[in-house]
Amino acid sequence: MKVTMQKIESLAKQRGFIYPSSEIYGGMANAWDYGPLGVELKNNFKKIWWKHFVQENADIVGLDSAIIMNPKVWEASGHVGEFGDILVDCKKCKNRFRADHLIEDAIGIDVEGKPLDVVNKTIKENKVKCQFCKASDWTDARHFSGLFKTHIGVLEDKSSLAYLRPETAQGMFVNFKQVLASVRKRLPLGVAQIGKSFRNEITPGNYTFRTREFEIAEFEYFINPKDWEQKFDYWMQEMMRFAEIIGIPKSKIHQHEISKEKRAHYSLRTVDLELEFPFGVKELWGLAYRTDYDLKKHQEYSGQDLTYTDPETGKKFIPHVIEPTFGVDRSLLAILVSSYDEEKVKSAKGEMETRVVMRLPKDLAPYKVAVLPLSKNPELSPKAKEVFDLLKEKFMCDYDETQSIGKRYRRQDEIGTPFCITVDFDTLKDKAITVRDRDTMKQDRVAIKDLDNYLADKLK
Amino acid sequence: MKVTMQKIESLAKQRGFIYPSSEIYGGMANAWDYGPLGVELKNNFKKIWWKHFVQENADIVGLDSAIIMNPKVWEASGHVGEFGDILVDCKKCKNRFRADHLIEDAIGIDVEGKPLDVVNKTIKENKVKCQFCKASDWTDARHFSGLFKTHIGVLEDKSSLAYLRPETAQGMFVNFKQVLASVRKRLPLGVAQIGKSFRNEITPGNYTFRTREFEIAEFEYFINPKDWEQKFDYWMQEMMRFAEIIGIPKSKIHQHEISKEKRAHYSLRTVDLELEFPFGVKELWGLAYRTDYDLKKHQEYSGQDLTYTDPETGKKFIPHVIEPTFGVDRSLLAILVSSYDEEKVKSAKGEMETRVVMRLPKDLAPYKVAVLPLSKNPELSPKAKEVFDLLKEKFMCDYDETQSIGKRYRRQDEIGTPFCITVDFDTLKDKAITVRDRDTMKQDRVAIKDLDNYLADKLK
Repeated sequence: MKVTMQKIESLAKQRGFIYPSSEIYGGMANAWDYGPLGVELKNNFKKIWWKHFVQENADIVGLDSAIIMNPKVWEASGHVGEFGDILVDCKKCKNRFRADHLIEDAIGIDVEGKPLDVVNKTIKENKVKCQFCKASDWTDARHFSGLFKTHIGVLEDKSSLAYLRPETAQGMFVNFKQVLASVRKRLPLGVAQIGKSFRNEITPGNYTFRTREFEIAEFEYFINPKDWEQKFDYWMQEMMRFAEIIGIPKSKIHQHEISKEKRAHYSLRTVDLELEFPFGVKELWGLAYRTDYDLKKHQEYSGQDLTYTDPETGKKFIPHVIEPTFGVDRSLLAILVSSYDEEKVKSAKGEMETRVVMRLPKDLAPYKVAVLPLSKNPELSPKAKEVFDLLKEKFMCDYDETQSIGKRYRRQDEIGTPFCITVDFDTLKDKAITVRDRDTMKQDRVAIKDLDNYLADKLK
Repeated sequence: MKVTMQKIESLAKQRGFIYPSSEIYGGMANAWDYGPLGVELKNNFKKIWWKHFVQENADIVGLDSAIIMNPKVWEASGHVGEFGDILVDCKKCKNRFRADHLIEDAIGIDVEGKPLDVVNKTIKENKVKCQFCKASDWTDARHFSGLFKTHIGVLEDKSSLAYLRPETAQGMFVNFKQVLASVRKRLPLGVAQIGKSFRNEITPGNYTFRTREFEIAEFEYFINPKDWEQKFDYWMQEMMRFAEIIGIPKSKIHQHEISKEKRAHYSLRTVDLELEFPFGVKELWGLAYRTDYDLKKHQEYSGQDLTYTDPETGKKFIPHVIEPTFGVDRSLLAILVSSYDEEKVKSAKGEMETRVVMRLPKDLAPYKVAVLPLSKNPELSPKAKEVFDLLKEKFMCDYDETQSIGKRYRRQDEIGTPFCITVDFDTLKDKAITVRDRDTMKQDRVAIKDLDNYLADKLK
């Protein structure tokens, strides 16, 4: 069984995980909306992430900072200067290219992360040709800011210019001192955030893998620099443990050590955690040692004292930072790809057919339980709704009385619902229902009065 | 005891609920960051809202649509045309005003929601004077778009123009047909969303009550128009019930029927649910009957068929909509204001002092439990951490070993933690701890092995 993007996208759209955004208006390039199942999956992912990294660690606390911050934040962080892709235009046909992609495609040389002069020199020396008009007449390469700009207030000038944040991390840096003061903790201290970020990418793509609007879950773990190697290793292990919790086998994750040349200039060590997607091996998460680069820059630009005083030694220093980053949207895509399964089963008519099962970990499944009257019937429907009402406070439940019971089972399999409850005519007499297990398809007869405990136990 | 904004803001900042955004750079007008406690409170609010309105209703499902949608969405919705405030400039001193505020302040006439010509006529006929230079020489009044603009891609022209959504509702309208198809339900069907929205307000203010960047929780309840009055009443009752769940007494909420003149033009009925804030009686939530206005507009602008076929009668119609809207930030402010309490208590030294208690409903409290070693001590700290580790998977716990135990109790009272657990020297012998109740300050001695069940029961 091969998982293809076509299978994932089609199921996701049909069942309500992910829709093309603004589709009635012909869509919106590289924007996606999460449907009824997608938003539950996303919320469950965030809840598990928050529990694993924030709730269960006494030394990590949360934050939710504004998307539109003071623009000086992005000057200090370097995003206003050099953030974004390097672009060149073909002077003849006026087509515009990401310089690194152009060079890689034309002559197979990788200049990603290289400075402007190297890019210009590479293009000239190798007489790189335009893919469209075959000319070799280029503008100078230049940085294109990946920051989305907007204006606050009535005037649209430099004084009102503001940016949509391209990452959540700076929110943790500029609030570090306030957080430290209010939570009364010592280093190491982690500050975590989940939130939307925006990057004006020239070449987004691969479904929800790279989009201009996306969600990040990450934390900045502020430490004494002497501990960095130990903490780096510790959080790498925790990231791998988290992968297993959300149903991605450790063995499928490849730790890719980023070379000095390719790392962000402030990082002393970066490891990408890569996963095999249907479109190739790509970065899923990242772990970076950002040193004291960010706090130092903010101290310089703001004039505020951002040092920390070690309460034991009395020594002052600017904390260093280990940063585990998780793209939320690509994590959800990884979960869908990892959970998708097909198997051959015998149909009611005795024919072999393919059953699609989304083998989501139970905590992640959008619905824990589906309540299904055997058929749409004036006696069964009210009874089934009674069962739904009995369970709805404790479990996220679906209710479905359309189509045949077989088709409804298949639908619940496809959306990963761990348990289907069928209310049949016997229920009216024996006050029991049938519980069907998604993975084994085995059925249990359970008394309605025991159902609550039965499910709580199975879902533990 | 009078709750003032000064008390709320000061506590919120000191304890880590809400910080002024980008404060190290002198702040960012009307932008706020939620600190470690604020983000927990917000997440708890969202969780309770989602449970109450989505999980517990078989006919409501969730959605999470993009912030940057196809700009045609905002043309169809009317936001590109007439959304936003009406502004006038004083020709003499060049100051700019919101016309309705200017007129109200100068001559006490309310023109909010009135068309441009009425505003111009009112200013002229009443010779409204500038507050600053006393001249009466005005530009024509004009609409100022409350939409934040940005550009996608490299070019900054009309073709790349995009907007930050000013409300989440349109996401539900443009996805209505896709949702209906994937969830296989009939009307009535609600589609709910919680998310960030952005309005380029001329006069934001009152702390987090009105900000340019804010979060909305709302749902569009699609119905057959014949049911509108019954459904309107039903959701009004549910909104009032929700108020009690989050600790706002029904009696404090005033249902303000909005007159025809002041309603949005598409609404046939709107009721604002108002609350007494320290800065006055203000809109907390809203309930509106939006008719079929939005779907009709989107059908017209997109050319797509947005009708629904009644499966019983076979009749086709465009669904009508009831919309309950909850500002998340102002809900949190309402919760803080409603929960804040002060009482006189006797200190350890026998003096009367004021105890500040945030009487948050337990479900909303950022921390359910605080684990406190009686003092910082090489025997007590590890034992206390053991207790923390025992509880952390089930409950959001704080851990604090700074300052005197009395001060730490006060801190937990101020942040609304329902239970404090003290690990003392007896604990090392009797394997029991002291649980202190936030509201009664009564203490129970509980065996560590029973703690889990004790807390689960108390927090139910």
